[in-house]
Amino acid sequence: MVRPLTALDRHAVEEILVASGAFSAEEVRVALQMVNEGIAQGPVNGYVLLGVEVEVVLCGYACIGSTPLTLSTWHVYWICVHPDAQGRGVGRALQAHIEEYVRSRGGERLVVETSGRLDYQRSRQFYEAAGFRMSGRIRDYYKPGDDCVWYCKVL
Amino acid sequence: MVRPLTALDRHAVEEILVASGAFSAEEVRVALQMVNEGIAQGPVNGYVLLGVEVEVVLCGYACIGSTPLTLSTWHVYWICVHPDAQGRGVGRALQAHIEEYVRSRGGERLVVETSGRLDYQRSRQFYEAAGFRMSGRIRDYYKPGDDCVWYCKVL
Repeated sequence: MVRPLTALDRHAVEEILVASGAFSAEEVRVALQMVNEGIAQGPVNGYVLLGVEVEVVLCGYACIGSTPLTLSTWHVYWICVHPDAQGRGVGRALQAHIEEYVRSRGGERLVVETSGRLDYQRSRQFYEAAGFRMSGRIRDYYKPGDDCVWYCKVL
Repeated sequence: MVRPLTALDRHAVEEILVASGAFSAEEVRVALQMVNEGIAQGPVNGYVLLGVEVEVVLCGYACIGSTPLTLSTWHVYWICVHPDAQGRGVGRALQAHIEEYVRSRGGERLVVETSGRLDYQRSRQFYEAAGFRMSGRIRDYYKPGDDCVWYCKVL
């Protein structure tokens, strides 16, 4: 089940981000800050926060938003599924819901910015399987040896 | 002469942005909002605002900042020179100062995001002449027929 996040989900989101092992402490801090902002401002003025539940337990979430100064582009800022729930279609269900949400608001494309690191290969494969295409790459963007890779999916 | 912007420069910056003809009303609004934020927060916590003067008149400015969650990447968010001052090296002087500023703070690369539209060709040529390389492109990113193009310069 996919539903909007509420303030009560904050702790579960933190647990998911930390358990994923994909993010540095600073990245977790920024992700949680965006969750707090999104909850405080609501989806019309700020980030849209979607959580996915399996048997009443939150096991993944996404933070998306319409891209400033664009007509119909949206960014997927964060998407994360608890490792225990991976490989069970949870990410795909969340992604399908994101696309439905964005399309229903006139969005025509999704952009994600991710790492080119080897340990992000599974994430990149997820985007590629979901129909994203690589749009660009900047070497050493995050830090030496850690490129930024942009993906875009036309909806 | 390149110097930090102050609150007294707001009106001149607006005039430069409008006179350039490169930006929509919404883009001018966002650019000015970032100027206000940068002035209010100061360069350590927020955007860095650099203005370029010719004969005591502000004729260009740049809004830059270190890119969140990166070690040594900086973004040039806005750079604009008044049309009356273009073709006189003002943009180049500003760009040289940006690079010096960023390098002195440990920055190792500059990223700009610009439009692929025909009327932005001069901007793209400016970046290419300054040593930027195209890193990616997303079709129709801003609106139909208005692609986003990323450029990066390693310092």
